[in-house]
Amino acid sequence: MNENNVPAHATPLAAVSQVIETLKARWPDRISTSEALRKQHANTFTWHQPQLPDAVVFAHSTKEVQEIVRLCAAHRVPIIPFGTGTSLEGQINAPQGGISVDLSQMNEILSVFPGDLACTVQAGVTRKQLNEYLRDQGLFFPIDPGADASLGGMAATRASGTNAVRYGTMRENVLSLTVVLPDGRAVRTARRARKSSAGYDLTRLLVGSEGTLGVITEVTLKLSGIPETIAAAVCPFETLAGACDTAMAAIQSGIPIARIELLDELQIKACNIYSKLTLAEAPTLFVEFHGSRTSVDEQVALFEAIAQDNDARGFQWSTKPEERTKLWQARHDAAFSCMVLKPGAAVLPTDVCVPISRLAECVLATKEDLARRNLFGPIVGHVGDGNFHVAVLFDRDNAEEVKRVKAFSEALAHRAIAMDGTCTGEHGVGQGKMAYLDAEFGDALDLMRAVKRAIDLLNIMNPGKIFAL
Amino acid sequence: MNENNVPAHATPLAAVSQVIETLKARWPDRISTSEALRKQHANTFTWHQPQLPDAVVFAHSTKEVQEIVRLCAAHRVPIIPFGTGTSLEGQINAPQGGISVDLSQMNEILSVFPGDLACTVQAGVTRKQLNEYLRDQGLFFPIDPGADASLGGMAATRASGTNAVRYGTMRENVLSLTVVLPDGRAVRTARRARKSSAGYDLTRLLVGSEGTLGVITEVTLKLSGIPETIAAAVCPFETLAGACDTAMAAIQSGIPIARIELLDELQIKACNIYSKLTLAEAPTLFVEFHGSRTSVDEQVALFEAIAQDNDARGFQWSTKPEERTKLWQARHDAAFSCMVLKPGAAVLPTDVCVPISRLAECVLATKEDLARRNLFGPIVGHVGDGNFHVAVLFDRDNAEEVKRVKAFSEALAHRAIAMDGTCTGEHGVGQGKMAYLDAEFGDALDLMRAVKRAIDLLNIMNPGKIFAL
Repeated sequence: MNENNVPAHATPLAAVSQVIETLKARWPDRISTSEALRKQHANTFTWHQPQLPDAVVFAHSTKEVQEIVRLCAAHRVPIIPFGTGTSLEGQINAPQGGISVDLSQMNEILSVFPGDLACTVQAGVTRKQLNEYLRDQGLFFPIDPGADASLGGMAATRASGTNAVRYGTMRENVLSLTVVLPDGRAVRTARRARKSSAGYDLTRLLVGSEGTLGVITEVTLKLSGIPETIAAAVCPFETLAGACDTAMAAIQSGIPIARIELLDELQIKACNIYSKLTLAEAPTLFVEFHGSRTSVDEQVALFEAIAQDNDARGFQWSTKPEERTKLWQARHDAAFSCMVLKPGAAVLPTDVCVPISRLAECVLATKEDLARRNLFGPIVGHVGDGNFHVAVLFDRDNAEEVKRVKAFSEALAHRAIAMDGTCTGEHGVGQGKMAYLDAEFGDALDLMRAVKRAIDLLNIMNPGKIFAL
Repeated sequence: MNENNVPAHATPLAAVSQVIETLKARWPDRISTSEALRKQHANTFTWHQPQLPDAVVFAHSTKEVQEIVRLCAAHRVPIIPFGTGTSLEGQINAPQGGISVDLSQMNEILSVFPGDLACTVQAGVTRKQLNEYLRDQGLFFPIDPGADASLGGMAATRASGTNAVRYGTMRENVLSLTVVLPDGRAVRTARRARKSSAGYDLTRLLVGSEGTLGVITEVTLKLSGIPETIAAAVCPFETLAGACDTAMAAIQSGIPIARIELLDELQIKACNIYSKLTLAEAPTLFVEFHGSRTSVDEQVALFEAIAQDNDARGFQWSTKPEERTKLWQARHDAAFSCMVLKPGAAVLPTDVCVPISRLAECVLATKEDLARRNLFGPIVGHVGDGNFHVAVLFDRDNAEEVKRVKAFSEALAHRAIAMDGTCTGEHGVGQGKMAYLDAEFGDALDLMRAVKRAIDLLNIMNPGKIFAL
């Protein structure tokens, strides 16, 4: 873990000061060097030590971002794009100092194209804001990481969530981006057609690039129609294996399930306390089905048969919208809720993703590994994608325990990679997963580095993330 | 149109000769400089004049491709990857000469992972070969360009087809690629997990790169379960507008339609002659629905209501598999069949894709434009994606007509771009659409060029395609 909470200044202070002075003259009310604000813009949510930027500037338009980027480029000062600050792997830290460009005030929904099931928003619009806006039109945007993240940040980190098993991740749901490049030019990565074979897929190159190639300022998204019928259920199992096997079989049998979430008995306990639920403390699947009435009935029947074959203890169906909302809010609050199990503990939230045929094996081995290392961490996951999370709770001041946590996290990443999976299904690389990319990609990592160098020659775009150059 | 059918040799002949001599010593039986074979490996299917490679070599493994690439790189000799040669925009031409690397003998299906609905194949495996192999396992690979293309070539050109509206294109269905880079290293772009947020999306960067960044040698694909029920129908309309409006409304209402293909009255006439059908010569939709019995019934009822609102003349349902096969084979043969309408004519097949809300407008304006320019070209399209094709039939020896064809094709690309669409939905850029990328991407085109330069410094990978450097 990085110990220093002051930036290791590779950037000359004189350059930084000059940039800050210019920004102050330009937007006196929208730039700050206050420690409180800078702290809030460094990574405080997770186990990564905060590394503060030198200043925070609030941008209001793509043109303003271009101005800021040109200024920083001229002085070779790092730029750290900031949406809501809810990323989990140190993506918004400033290890070399620099300017945090806060896009949260760029929160305008620019266009909705109902006939195309699409919309264009400024990068600072959050997913909940968008969905509230869309509701009256019978449309919604399905990607739902736990936090109410900004759509620019979600694009930058290739976010995902509970609906990904049916609707895909940001990879599948971004049609086009407006991006300010390291040289200050603003470009649009694609047009609004659903498909295209015109040249390199710049949209997908930028989605998941974590601010290292440019600042995303506008996002054009695919939308979906709000389903006619939604059925959600809680289904506890005798064993963790039974829950995993059910998820695997449901996917393999082609049920177009909208959500299938695993919560182990520890996580259920945490949700019961934090979200005031009264669920049985057992390995549990939260499931949801979308479609017409008959299609949902059919999906439910198929799923129930599979679950019963795997020792499900029965189903608790939520038919009312408010019940469903409570259920999914509890799921989204899982990351927070687990802290109630060990008050005062630090939390290392990590995630991996494996081919679904290896899911049960990977989850069970991980559970055993936690026990073997005498660590405490609820498991929760988007298991329909083969993706699961562990939130390890630990005492930050206990150096020996910290060591065990790090070893566990390393072993988990390598376990997933050994199963032909990935060291991160949806949290991204940031600072936390850099160490594993070599094992995951081998020489292909050089391809990423070549792209980075070609686009961000000066290495001013969120430096120190994804890979060392 | 490029007039020369001999390569404009930017590559020194001595270098080429040395490469050919070395290849001959290495694989005497698998390298050829015969004109017939070289012609067959240049672009003969479409309006692009063939530009012959200097030699053709048949590779049998990734390692062999590495050896060939290293040799060519050492002598700065261009490499043109070749699958089945069915691309339509000059992707396999050799404007600077060089070595055509034929991957068709790398046709092994390496692994099927039924539990993960995935498989890994060598690049030369064709889509029909794969589907025949998979049939017994209840699985299929849905992407179906007209030709029986190789899966490596389909990945390289971001191929698509009639099923894309439901199953996506190669963009959505490639999990990972093995690629030989211009420096001869072989890398794997991703692991086999369904999703990942580990760094840049190299898979999507390579999909659609048309051989300009490396040679794809293996492809890991998502598979789908063969649907329990399939229903296909032919539905003629009073007007072209009615057919387009039906497609738009079906998509907007969220029917998970598997295929929805438009054929105008000229194309129907061609299909009737070529494929021995007896369809009414009217603008027609070919549609197909996949799902359970009840889900298909529901989709059909919804669709019929929409079609009837738009003056459909009735439905002709194909319930038997052999009837369906005949129907879709006729659709896949559309590109060939249209030639019967004007025997001896040359054909310029082109495609564009627009946001679906602009589909009717774009198709109708294109039809009018054909008439205004006194040109003859059936229209056929994957209209559920907003994607359609025009196959303009013309006399290659009539310079004045050739001029009109070129002007029409240019106007079509710009019409699509002006509607926030793309100059090519699925044929790719190759040599034929290079002129439009500036209008479509503006400065973002520089981003593509920067990536190309970073990865293929010597510009040996399929040079002269997508963009001029």
